Formats: sequence, C-alpha cells, structure tokens
Amino acid sequence: MSGILYLIPSPIGSIKEVDYLTQSNTEILQNLKYFIVESEKTARAFLHYCGHNLDDNLNFIEYNEHNFNKINIDDWLKILKSNNSIGLISEAGTPCIADPGSEIVLRAHLNDIEVYPFAIPSSITMALMSSGLNGQKFSFHGYLDKNVNKLRQQIKILERESRLSGYSQIFMEVPYKSQKIFDLLLNTLKSDTFLCVAAELNTSEQFIKTKQIKSWKNFQVELNKKRCIFIFQNKNYF
Amino acid sequence: MSGILYLIPSPIGSIKEVDYLTQSNTEILQNLKYFIVESEKTARAFLHYCGHNLDDNLNFIEYNEHNFNKINIDDWLKILKSNNSIGLISEAGTPCIADPGSEIVLRAHLNDIEVYPFAIPSSITMALMSSGLNGQKFSFHGYLDKNVNKLRQQIKILERESRLSGYSQIFMEVPYKSQKIFDLLLNTLKSDTFLCVAAELNTSEQFIKTKQIKSWKNFQVELNKKRCIFIFQNKNYF
Repeated sequence: MSGILYLIPSPIGSIKEVDYLTQSNTEILQNLKYFIVESEKTARAFLHYCGHNLDDNLNFIEYNEHNFNKINIDDWLKILKSNNSIGLISEAGTPCIADPGSEIVLRAHLNDIEVYPFAIPSSITMALMSSGLNGQKFSFHGYLDKNVNKLRQQIKILERESRLSGYSQIFMEVPYKSQKIFDLLLNTLKSDTFLCVAAELNTSEQFIKTKQIKSWKNFQVELNKKRCIFIFQNKNYF
Repeated sequence: MSGILYLIPSPIGSIKEVDYLTQSNTEILQNLKYFIVESEKTARAFLHYCGHNLDDNLNFIEYNEHNFNKINIDDWLKILKSNNSIGLISEAGTPCIADPGSEIVLRAHLNDIEVYPFAIPSSITMALMSSGLNGQKFSFHGYLDKNVNKLRQQIKILERESRLSGYSQIFMEVPYKSQKIFDLLLNTLKSDTFLCVAAELNTSEQFIKTKQIKSWKNFQVELNKKRCIFIFQNKNYF
C-alpha cells in the first residue's frame, strides 16, 4: 500500500487569497506530515494559514527547478511506499503549470504512486474563457523570449500561427515586465489582431479586456507590476 | 452603467457535482434574472439545484454553436446596457473552453461590457498538473479528427511536434469513444512516448495515470464511456 502524492496550489499573491480549498482538501492538507516544497519557510506560512497545527513531526524536502536531480528521489519514494502521503506545494501558484514539479509527478507515476490534484481555479482557464478568443484550440507558451528582438519575432510567428491554425496564443510574464510587454504587443501585433489582457484574476483588482490592437491604442491602461495573462488571436471579426 | 456578463460553468456529469461554486458566486447566481443558455430545461435544473428560486421573471435566451448568428445580439446587449447582468451557462462544463460561448464573450468585450468568470476548477489544468508532462508549454487541440486515417496522421504529427518543441499535446474525446481512442493511441504513438490518461476528474471515479506506451500495453484499463482527457509527449526519460 502506497501513499498519495497530493498536488497543492499555493496563493500567487497575498496568503489571504486561500479561499479556493474545499473542506475535504483542507482536511487532507491538515493531516499531511511530509511535504516537497520550493521553500520550507513559505510552505510553513501557507500551512499555518490553512489551519495545519505544524507540530514537530513535519518533514520538508526542498526542491526547485534547478536542484531536482540533486534531491534524493529514493528518499521521497521510500516515504510514499511506506504508506505515507506527501504534499507537493509550489512557491506560488499551481505545481507543474508554469511552475516546477512535473519531474516529481512523472517519477511518481513511473513508480506506480497515485497522484491527486487539488481542484483549484486556474488563471489560464479563467483568462481564456473570459477572452472571447478561441477556447477550442489554444497553445500556452509559458514565458516568452527575454531578448526583445527575438521576442518581437516570436510574437509575429505566433500571430501568424493563430491566423493560419485558429489557435489562441497564451503567455504569461513576470509582473514587473507587464507594462513593457503590453506596450511591445501594441507595437508588434497587427492592428486587427485581438488581444486579451487578464490581470490580477480572482482578486478585487481583477481586470479583463479584449480589444483589437487599434482599439487598445486609444485606451489607457496601467499594468505596471500587475500579474497578467496575455492572449492574442488574429481572426475574422464575425 | 452596464450589467455584467457572468460566465458560469455547469457540471459535466451528475448535477450533484456542483460543489465548486463559492458562496459569493452562488449569491451572484441566485440573483440573476437573465440567462444565455444552450438549453433552458437543463439550465433551469442547474439553477434549481443551486438554490435559485426560479420565479416567473426569469428570461432565457437559447443559443448553441450553430445558431449564434441567428440569435438577436441586440436583444442581449440591450439587457446588459440597461444595467441588468446576464449569466452565460453552457450545457455541460465551462463556457467557451471546449464548449461554445466565445462569440458571445467577444461581442460583450467589443461593446465594453464587463465579463466576469466564475472561479472553477479546470479539468484540463488538473489533468496537466497531474500528468508529469510539460506544464510550461502545451497545446490543447479540443477534439481531434473524426476520420480514423486522418486522426492517426494527426496524432503522429503532434507526437513529432512534442519531440521537437517540447509542448505537451492535450485533447479530449466524447466518452463513448474513449476506449477506441485509447486503443488507437497505443497502436499509433511510439513505444517510448509518455501518455497520460485522466478520467472522470474530480469525481469518486477519478483515474489518472502516465506511462510510456510500451508500459500501457501491459496494463489493463477500462475506459469505456469514461470522460477522459488525453495528454502525450515524446521526451527524454530524465
């Protein structure tokens, strides 16, 4: 009998945003003793906020995208195979999606360990459903190129793909770059391309708008330091 | 002052699965009088289950992916512009994602109507985070080709893309075809390609497993009539 690897999202912004855990998931979380985390300190704060009693018997294995191959995989597989469950908590957001963790999950599958995702709202899904752009076929590109010239080229290629294949093109950026990326999109995409900006989703600051580039140019928006998801598609206007 | 277009998911399986609505979303839902729905009958059953009192003053506009251009857009824009909010409810699942609705949302944006998505768990996100496959970059293809020969070719192209670009390839299928598609994947994908089957997510029947094709061939699984999300990626094994 093996334990279960639970995939546990942590809040992206304020820790007080933890209103997405169901009662049953909260109970599971409160009973876990073993955790694989990016940072023990922030994981402890999150667990405390979720009502975990944080007794002395908790065990944390720290990992991040750089040290995965250095942490002792046999250690946490042994824990799971001894019928103890483990919670995988990412630093901010959903483990494995635009965040590290997938190597751990794959290793669990390959060792016949059950994987159980907490049911949580997904900002990518919420942005896409609210965009009015194609939700039947889409590509998520994570973070785009850091080099501005390459980035501009990448955006043009993705725009062309959206025209040819109909796929919505979704990407994220770190908050301090949001305004810069938005300005670059306005100067790079075609005037008739639709761009959706979905900022600070599921918070009181939520802002979601889709406009053609030519309309965005006449619209004032302040995205500085806002957590944004960008979606664009070049398509016929009905 | 305009009303808001609320995007409201309905349960895919049994109506009793509506445990994902937050208190604030439930209150919004119970106060809505206008709805754009795929079917009035199932929308009424859903609203009843969510505690809506269903008085005589409710208004339903029926739409589906085929009649969007036939329903009178001016009618529902007039409702919104008169400071009445509208709930957009899809027949089963999340409006606009692998479901109709995006044309309505886009039309709302272009008329400066605020769009507000209910925060709901996404089966695509839950499947992907649980797969152990690439969650940094992925493509969702909706439903693949119906023609078996074209489907086989499409799967091979997507598998090659996953190898070259690293993108996880995600698609869905209608439940009665799940077993057939699974068998076809086993016979079409390369033996070292990783395939994740995520069935009946967020229900007591939940089944999530990722294996290489050669391992799936030695594993018994019964997917007949199960709601499945399939994800595959050809990648190096660590």
